[in-house]
Amino acid sequence: MDLFDAIRNRRSCREFLSEPVPEETLHRILNAAVWAPSPLNAQPWEFIVITNQEAKERIYAEAERRREWLRERSGWKWLGRYRVEFLKSAPVIVAVVGDPEKTGADRFLEGGGLGYQHACAAAIQNMLLAAHALGLGGLWFTLYDLKVIGEILRVEPPKVPLALVCIGKARGEPLQTPRKPLSETTRYLR
Amino acid sequence: MDLFDAIRNRRSCREFLSEPVPEETLHRILNAAVWAPSPLNAQPWEFIVITNQEAKERIYAEAERRREWLRERSGWKWLGRYRVEFLKSAPVIVAVVGDPEKTGADRFLEGGGLGYQHACAAAIQNMLLAAHALGLGGLWFTLYDLKVIGEILRVEPPKVPLALVCIGKARGEPLQTPRKPLSETTRYLR
Repeated sequence: MDLFDAIRNRRSCREFLSEPVPEETLHRILNAAVWAPSPLNAQPWEFIVITNQEAKERIYAEAERRREWLRERSGWKWLGRYRVEFLKSAPVIVAVVGDPEKTGADRFLEGGGLGYQHACAAAIQNMLLAAHALGLGGLWFTLYDLKVIGEILRVEPPKVPLALVCIGKARGEPLQTPRKPLSETTRYLR
Repeated sequence: MDLFDAIRNRRSCREFLSEPVPEETLHRILNAAVWAPSPLNAQPWEFIVITNQEAKERIYAEAERRREWLRERSGWKWLGRYRVEFLKSAPVIVAVVGDPEKTGADRFLEGGGLGYQHACAAAIQNMLLAAHALGLGGLWFTLYDLKVIGEILRVEPPKVPLALVCIGKARGEPLQTPRKPLSETTRYLR
């Protein structure tokens, strides 16, 4: 698939068919991830490929708890209607784990740097583009408590499960969201 | 260009030819950026397109100062040899500015969330892929003090200039960096 088509037509997918993702397809997606750039090429990512149903149920339960907690805290009504069933139904969830010890020169900044998180985000974007190009839907999900998900997935601190990427065949056509025109977000220093 | 070719063959480019980047090409790169996903589709990014030579010189001076500061602090000898001349020679630098007020439900977390930074990183990855597909080199640069660059570029806090993306025709062939095999970074929860 053409790069610009992939970028333009990728959607966040929240409903999946149960059809499994072939191992070969998953490898292409993970191989796309690791070609993202990272500070000092430290490759500060690890991947946990989750197909185990019990693990998905525990992740779902945590996301539900977190959703409820956020709904109370935020007062946002839509969070009451927001369903996270896709965590149970997505055939595969890839947890992208970031390692703060593999960041760049930013490690010398006060409080440590976030370069490793930015690199992981770039890797996730590659994954979402790759999934789309391979005919799959993807979702970048972060509505959970890092510590709880870290425990479920046995992520050793200080490593952090930065995102759960749900992948599978989309059920139906995911919604298209609009974008602001560039003129609203761009200025020039000529 | 095929998505997987773009992902696989993109390189960090640190030497540029002076040839200007056509406006149309730049627009395609920025349009690629904004199709990244973001929490609540808040599109927490702004772009400052810098072609002004004086601004580039000031950015260069700050990066040099920062490099020296980091060299002393880190003891990393390579930082003594690291040249940041590309900040003066890149025909265009796009500052990607993140807005913490446009983050997701993570805003209710203690200390606020980083979702907006992750979205900006995904947008930057789109930019680098698009630049590569259009025959240009790109560099994701962060070796500077956020506050100083914010002042040079007149970024209003709490907005943050998260990265400077240098773009232009590459001089020579940028280095290829290796990647660890997936077997080292992936585990399975089956």
